[in-house]
Amino acid sequence: MSQFYNLTQIKEVLKKLQPIKDIEEGFVAYSEGKTRIPPVGEMIFEKPPGDVHIKYGYIVDDDYYVIKIASGFFESPDSNRYTSDGLLLLFKKGTGELVCALLDECHLTNVRTAAAGAVAARYLAPKHIDCVGIVGAGTQGRMQLEFLESIIDCRDVMVWGMNQKELDEYLKYMEPSDYNIRTTLRTEDIADGCNFIVTATPSKTPLLPADLIRKGTHITAMGSDTPEKKELDPRILQKADIVVADSISQCLLRGEIHHALKAGVLKKEGIVELGNVIVNPKLQRTSEEQTTIADLTGVAVQDLQIAKAVYHALVDKNKSQAT
Amino acid sequence: MSQFYNLTQIKEVLKKLQPIKDIEEGFVAYSEGKTRIPPVGEMIFEKPPGDVHIKYGYIVDDDYYVIKIASGFFESPDSNRYTSDGLLLLFKKGTGELVCALLDECHLTNVRTAAAGAVAARYLAPKHIDCVGIVGAGTQGRMQLEFLESIIDCRDVMVWGMNQKELDEYLKYMEPSDYNIRTTLRTEDIADGCNFIVTATPSKTPLLPADLIRKGTHITAMGSDTPEKKELDPRILQKADIVVADSISQCLLRGEIHHALKAGVLKKEGIVELGNVIVNPKLQRTSEEQTTIADLTGVAVQDLQIAKAVYHALVDKNKSQAT
Repeated sequence: MSQFYNLTQIKEVLKKLQPIKDIEEGFVAYSEGKTRIPPVGEMIFEKPPGDVHIKYGYIVDDDYYVIKIASGFFESPDSNRYTSDGLLLLFKKGTGELVCALLDECHLTNVRTAAAGAVAARYLAPKHIDCVGIVGAGTQGRMQLEFLESIIDCRDVMVWGMNQKELDEYLKYMEPSDYNIRTTLRTEDIADGCNFIVTATPSKTPLLPADLIRKGTHITAMGSDTPEKKELDPRILQKADIVVADSISQCLLRGEIHHALKAGVLKKEGIVELGNVIVNPKLQRTSEEQTTIADLTGVAVQDLQIAKAVYHALVDKNKSQAT
Repeated sequence: MSQFYNLTQIKEVLKKLQPIKDIEEGFVAYSEGKTRIPPVGEMIFEKPPGDVHIKYGYIVDDDYYVIKIASGFFESPDSNRYTSDGLLLLFKKGTGELVCALLDECHLTNVRTAAAGAVAARYLAPKHIDCVGIVGAGTQGRMQLEFLESIIDCRDVMVWGMNQKELDEYLKYMEPSDYNIRTTLRTEDIADGCNFIVTATPSKTPLLPADLIRKGTHITAMGSDTPEKKELDPRILQKADIVVADSISQCLLRGEIHHALKAGVLKKEGIVELGNVIVNPKLQRTSEEQTTIADLTGVAVQDLQIAKAVYHALVDKNKSQAT
């Protein structure tokens, strides 16, 4: 019988894994055309408001396929109280057997998203970062910093949140980290003071003013994963030297690139794909003057990679306990 | 924690349920516009060949949403050895909590499909059936007869199968039933000898010759659920008096109606939807002279209805065992 694992069991084995490496390999396979990833499935709910995304697919020369279900619901149309949930299902190709169900309560989605941010930073961040800007003081705003720790040297951080309570909680949570964190309620402070910025909010209106973004800045925009959500002024993409999509086909329909294309300030031909950036140094940042954007909408190959890694670690653990 | 149920547990409670009623109510809700059912998600595999379908959606004034995963794989490109598998996931709206996972190994898909056949028969079958024709001696070919038992009076059946071995197995399996079953290896015998026919094969080429179909016959075509599969000569739909789709929007893309539209022998305006047929006697068969077709591609609302019914029965069983 198939195996079901809860969040505690998943977190236990995650410690020993290298998700950044797994996710990076996934993006390369994706951009090399070695995956089959159908368009994202989507259910929209009005009352109570929310959405469910189904991301699924497989790598051609691989034994598995993945189906990932992630939901986000607001308690009521007016509340900011948000619940995310979901699970990852790993199946065996050729039989359709359910290999494992990872009841991760959305944690693995957060992990693979934060890992993608680290991958983008590895190839696109300026060498010298004055200050890291984090827009959004939620779970992903925290996890981005955790995953960036092994990639960048800078330890000075400015975080923007919706209110002081959220920021105080953020500071408290991040206290054990090595980062020196200041907080702000003005996104202008981030645009002005940081040359490496991550946006991680569910905003539907641009948060960063284009004119204040400094030349040479890198921005990873990861909050926007639907056709409606939008964190960046499209002019930021217009002025950028390098615009990277995690998936070009997906970014035509969702996220920041989608909005910039619709606004007519970006051309499809001007976009490069993260998996290609990883393997081709010419597509990476080559000077401190370049302004770079990574638009991450979340691709099923990330879910596949993290599900496989966790599954294999769980099997190994079970084996070692059995002997 | 969510509950996982295996096939044995599911079959145990199924005995007490009335799936035909549940499925009928689902079709009515669907045709009344009370559901939100996105297009079917699909993964196609080449090596080994197979496909996975993801059907999902919800009824607006209901507490749940469903995601159903069904896979079918051939062992090799040449083999006829086919494995189907899958599971149904029922979630709570507003939180995204997984209410239950029904590891049904495709059985509930078979049940809701057979129940849909019974619903179609209730409103479209001629009053006097000489002989029931079953095209396809697989699981669905058996289950159709089981579910028709409470709907039609005729007990004479002719079954077509690919080979005598398959037909012998069919006869053996159906021995305890009240049906008098003959077998044939020629689909012409079915077309010629039966005025109520169910096709339940994964064929990609038409099986029934249009010219032999008798006036007044009803055909339920349920094998074709992809854009490629096709069991009926489009001329059969051309000559029919009533053509019913389980879902018009889905049948534009998959199944027999899709092929007939593509061949230009059927008009979209000429199709009626099963949920509307159920509530409107004017859309049902009104004479023994009418030739009627029901094209069933399988709609997520069926999966939702069967998942809810099974889940509630499992909860009731657990409660009664606890007291």
